[in-house]
Amino acid sequence: MGEQKLDFSCDYLKGAHPAILQRMAETNMMKTTGYGLDEISNAARDKIRKACGCPDAAVEFLIGGTQANAVVIDAFLRSYQGVIAAQTGHISVHEAGAIEAGGHKVLTLPYHQGKLSAEDVRQYMEDFYHDDSYEHMVMPGMVYISQPTEQGTLYSRQEIADLRAVCDAYRMALYADGARLAYALACPENDVTLPDLAALCDAFYIGGTKCGALFGEAVVIPDPGRIPAFFTIIKQHGALLAKGRMLGLQFDTLFTDGLYEKIGIPAIRSAARIRKALIEKGYQLCFGSPTNQIFCVMENSRLEKLGEKAEYCFWAKYDDTHTVIRFATDWGTTGEETDALIGIM
Amino acid sequence: MGEQKLDFSCDYLKGAHPAILQRMAETNMMKTTGYGLDEISNAARDKIRKACGCPDAAVEFLIGGTQANAVVIDAFLRSYQGVIAAQTGHISVHEAGAIEAGGHKVLTLPYHQGKLSAEDVRQYMEDFYHDDSYEHMVMPGMVYISQPTEQGTLYSRQEIADLRAVCDAYRMALYADGARLAYALACPENDVTLPDLAALCDAFYIGGTKCGALFGEAVVIPDPGRIPAFFTIIKQHGALLAKGRMLGLQFDTLFTDGLYEKIGIPAIRSAARIRKALIEKGYQLCFGSPTNQIFCVMENSRLEKLGEKAEYCFWAKYDDTHTVIRFATDWGTTGEETDALIGIM
Amino acid sequence: MGEQKLDFSCDYLKGAHPAILQRMAETNMMKTTGYGLDEISNAARDKIRKACGCPDAAVEFLIGGTQANAVVIDAFLRSYQGVIAAQTGHISVHEAGAIEAGGHKVLTLPYHQGKLSAEDVRQYMEDFYHDDSYEHMVMPGMVYISQPTEQGTLYSRQEIADLRAVCDAYRMALYADGARLAYALACPENDVTLPDLAALCDAFYIGGTKCGALFGEAVVIPDPGRIPAFFTIIKQHGALLAKGRMLGLQFDTLFTDGLYEKIGIPAIRSAARIRKALIEKGYQLCFGSPTNQIFCVMENSRLEKLGEKAEYCFWAKYDDTHTVIRFATDWGTTGEETDALIGIM
Amino acid sequence: MGEQKLDFSCDYLKGAHPAILQRMAETNMMKTTGYGLDEISNAARDKIRKACGCPDAAVEFLIGGTQANAVVIDAFLRSYQGVIAAQTGHISVHEAGAIEAGGHKVLTLPYHQGKLSAEDVRQYMEDFYHDDSYEHMVMPGMVYISQPTEQGTLYSRQEIADLRAVCDAYRMALYADGARLAYALACPENDVTLPDLAALCDAFYIGGTKCGALFGEAVVIPDPGRIPAFFTIIKQHGALLAKGRMLGLQFDTLFTDGLYEKIGIPAIRSAARIRKALIEKGYQLCFGSPTNQIFCVMENSRLEKLGEKAEYCFWAKYDDTHTVIRFATDWGTTGEETDALIGIM
Repeated sequence: MGEQKLDFSCDYLKGAHPAILQRMAETNMMKTTGYGLDEISNAARDKIRKACGCPDAAVEFLIGGTQANAVVIDAFLRSYQGVIAAQTGHISVHEAGAIEAGGHKVLTLPYHQGKLSAEDVRQYMEDFYHDDSYEHMVMPGMVYISQPTEQGTLYSRQEIADLRAVCDAYRMALYADGARLAYALACPENDVTLPDLAALCDAFYIGGTKCGALFGEAVVIPDPGRIPAFFTIIKQHGALLAKGRMLGLQFDTLFTDGLYEKIGIPAIRSAARIRKALIEKGYQLCFGSPTNQIFCVMENSRLEKLGEKAEYCFWAKYDDTHTVIRFATDWGTTGEETDALIGIM
Repeated sequence: MGEQKLDFSCDYLKGAHPAILQRMAETNMMKTTGYGLDEISNAARDKIRKACGCPDAAVEFLIGGTQANAVVIDAFLRSYQGVIAAQTGHISVHEAGAIEAGGHKVLTLPYHQGKLSAEDVRQYMEDFYHDDSYEHMVMPGMVYISQPTEQGTLYSRQEIADLRAVCDAYRMALYADGARLAYALACPENDVTLPDLAALCDAFYIGGTKCGALFGEAVVIPDPGRIPAFFTIIKQHGALLAKGRMLGLQFDTLFTDGLYEKIGIPAIRSAARIRKALIEKGYQLCFGSPTNQIFCVMENSRLEKLGEKAEYCFWAKYDDTHTVIRFATDWGTTGEETDALIGIM
Repeated sequence: MGEQKLDFSCDYLKGAHPAILQRMAETNMMKTTGYGLDEISNAARDKIRKACGCPDAAVEFLIGGTQANAVVIDAFLRSYQGVIAAQTGHISVHEAGAIEAGGHKVLTLPYHQGKLSAEDVRQYMEDFYHDDSYEHMVMPGMVYISQPTEQGTLYSRQEIADLRAVCDAYRMALYADGARLAYALACPENDVTLPDLAALCDAFYIGGTKCGALFGEAVVIPDPGRIPAFFTIIKQHGALLAKGRMLGLQFDTLFTDGLYEKIGIPAIRSAARIRKALIEKGYQLCFGSPTNQIFCVMENSRLEKLGEKAEYCFWAKYDDTHTVIRFATDWGTTGEETDALIGIM
Repeated sequence: MGEQKLDFSCDYLKGAHPAILQRMAETNMMKTTGYGLDEISNAARDKIRKACGCPDAAVEFLIGGTQANAVVIDAFLRSYQGVIAAQTGHISVHEAGAIEAGGHKVLTLPYHQGKLSAEDVRQYMEDFYHDDSYEHMVMPGMVYISQPTEQGTLYSRQEIADLRAVCDAYRMALYADGARLAYALACPENDVTLPDLAALCDAFYIGGTKCGALFGEAVVIPDPGRIPAFFTIIKQHGALLAKGRMLGLQFDTLFTDGLYEKIGIPAIRSAARIRKALIEKGYQLCFGSPTNQIFCVMENSRLEKLGEKAEYCFWAKYDDTHTVIRFATDWGTTGEETDALIGIM
């Protein structure tokens, strides 16, 4: 394939952690029952329950993030309910209307460093129920957050606990999208553990696709009594993998010897070095992300030169002569790649 | 893992053809763009277009059969249209209402050896438009068939051409579910080639999951102008794989050196041997399947003993003392396994 | 307008019972709050609760039958559930896929004189939960019946009680479509009262459109705790009438002085006379309907002549030379009209 | 009923224009075919086509505004498309998610006096198609406006023509919600005629419910070839009135002798007097509405006293001591009522 151009455009460019491929090869000709009812998947479920400190949780493996969001939101909401999300939320913008296709409105609130504030949600709910015509409006039934957010920022444990309190007050479910959860867990600034998520959320998913797997997201529902026919809901969404052990196998590997909690470390280290270099070179960082996504402002003239040597992600127009761009590191980012990127910035 | 019990319960028990795993390992650390826009996926598309003799076709890779059916049916139908299928059709029975979840009624007709007859469809459409209140009913917009069918039988080229003619007469799309298509293509009784399907259908999918892949189905739309926003429809269904090259890679392998047309041969050979043995032992075969699914009637007392030594699939109650069971062979079934099963029948 | 041709083609050809029009004129310039929250609607609710013997019931007024069915079924079912109906059920055939548009499959069972049998439903449920792959199928969450049925027949109290028992055993809701309920209540053969329906069903609707109103169906949910946000569900379906008192007013009139229970009597009397005359003239009656719909077989040659003098409803082809037709009487059918029809049969 | 309290809380408090009730009484016992296929409905269609200057238009009568919006939007959009509306649009806020229940996202843009600006829509579309990931987003397929808007303001002919140009550039449909259209047509500031709407929009509806009818909205689709199965779509939405002539009759009356264009005049005159009085009394008007809705700021202390004597509509909190309220006049508002309201303001 020759030498590849530097590529920091996103965090799902490579295949899987080598341990996953090895396990796949070892078990390839085994015959197991389908649909995730096999022993490998069950072992993975147990490891995840243990890591999350919730021995009774339902754990189901889905294939991708949009699918997981659509399935979980549909499972929790009644037909007349909607889901509150930040304007920047993945479900608000980048899922092609998957939530609405299921009949549910995404109710957007402003974001603060990519995050919903409990205060905003509380105010929204107060206003909602004070409105004479609230019965003519979409009843919020769930709050959707991402950890880390689309802007790479982190909710603190307290911030999630505050959202939980609002959800309790208004009988809403709290759901965390963990597409990049490994990069939160590996981040020194993070104080939210897997058991914290299990204690505070009605559902969350542990991202595999961007965190070392070929594909796959593990949905955790701490109180499975909430969603009695989850298997059928998954099937109805076309989200049930026939050879389900391919998902179980990946998560079993990621949750063996604490791999998932460690797998993001190289990404975080690389991102920290890139941020330090950007600052030293006088670039303005954006959004305050401490995780594997680095956002900065660059002059358009400079970007052109950069683009010849490295792939990055266009994020937003800043002004007529500047652009916000994103670099993303991942579990496999090497020191050499990082050096090379820093060298050409 | 120790020695495994004989297992003929279905055709998705193993992993993938070894060539796929090898290719996965070789390319694992490559970085490619996501969502199936990579070069490997494009190469696979070209190979499939060539094999189907339709150089302009849209080819998109989805993950599983229910998903493919839901996406394609939703893409072709208008909101007020339904899809005609056999009462035994997979979409009619075993997809947990995925088609209805998309808002479309499945209109069922009787089956003949698992197949829809063009005559039945024509009669249904005639009656439909002769009914004074047809505008109060669901307008059929598509005919759904499976090749092979749920009962392992095959449509002849003429039978599909006849359905095509009815579809043309009533402006309906014709769609073929090819979950087990490799087993049709490898079957001596089959006279429907990939180019035939491309010439006669508005859409069909080439099954990977049951035919040598870890997962994946290749949807072919010979005239891509029919479905202008297919990528967005896929995303909306949560069916877009981030690391899309994992799908492309599998189909690129399956369509290299004609592997897909050959991969079903061991399954067909094994199935023929099993059928011969069943007849010799006095069992009654059912449905007339010539492909990799073998259906027969067994006494319940005999089934118990068989079940101790081999997994099979319960299909239906025959009478109070007999049961219809199914054996399924696959691309990896060996002569030794076949011998062993025959030995204990 | 000249003299009108005899018309027995259906039971919604005229306007409303004169008492309704009068009440409408009397209250026309009153200003009342919208959406059925007015005093007239509340009075109607109270009268209906009293007539049904269920003082706590939710009573909401919808506009038409398909709408009522779509709203109620959507309110009771979870997203992954379907509704069991007879193959001849209105929701199965003549609602243009309204139930599927809400995401729910209609699961059809054979009919016996237009009716579902409790035994068939019980067998279906037993088979369903005995099927290994029932989690891949649509879970039945409701049984839908019509009283009278599409074929004019009546469930007995015992038959509904038997269905109730099956529903209890399998945790399904029981829902009765009463589009023509007044004609059941006025029928000597009927032994199912409004309090019976309230005691046995989770929901039913009292038909207005075909029973003396301009339009409107009163949905009764004996235990309103079952459906907490019913108002919002109605609004979401576009089924909330701004000037809701127009519905309340009609039902208040129909439930004043027991009008609703009596309003069908002229229809039943006329139908009985028509049946008697048909038999005397040697025609074969169909389906055994004792209510306001009369089905019989006629020679096609005879039909032509009949059609010159009276409108009837084509029902089904009987054989190459005969047709099943339907006459429908209504609350306003006169003895003169009946005489005239009998005279030309 | 005794003397009623002054009520300016909205414009659907009364029944219908007396001419409608009279016509209803006159035709009550006529028998006509159902579902709007009768001669009265056809006469109404012809009168509307003539008034709109579009002799080939499809004209269908629906029952209410939310229903009309859901049906029309569903008819025009493909499953993956959304509809652009102002943040204040009725479909955005007050339809309980009816549009999302049909699977379509409402894409909101800022409002300017309640109106969408063509420039905002054009910018949104430019940004949309310039976004690398636009195929992951909801494709806008329609622009929804209201004439008059929720804030009582009016689009000029030029403003609608500008929106039309953007819609043409991006292949979107343009749809106007005319729930209060009679009050636009009766307003001296208005320069948009019915033929203008027919020339510029792909669909619009002529509001009956708030404009003199008991209920009903007339949907006009100037080029009916756009929506081939509109009748079935209506039925699927539960929006088909069995005794459809009740709708036709109302619109036939409203479009006889130009009644619809004149019916709003009393409302506009009354509103103008109320506005003048409010200004004279020192209140601040809001939004610049010239139609039958009057918005002003009042001290909360004053509101309490006002509320004892007249019903008004709470609109929004202005600050801690003030509130924005709305008065609505209608086709039947008298000079005496207007005097009385002015007297107590």
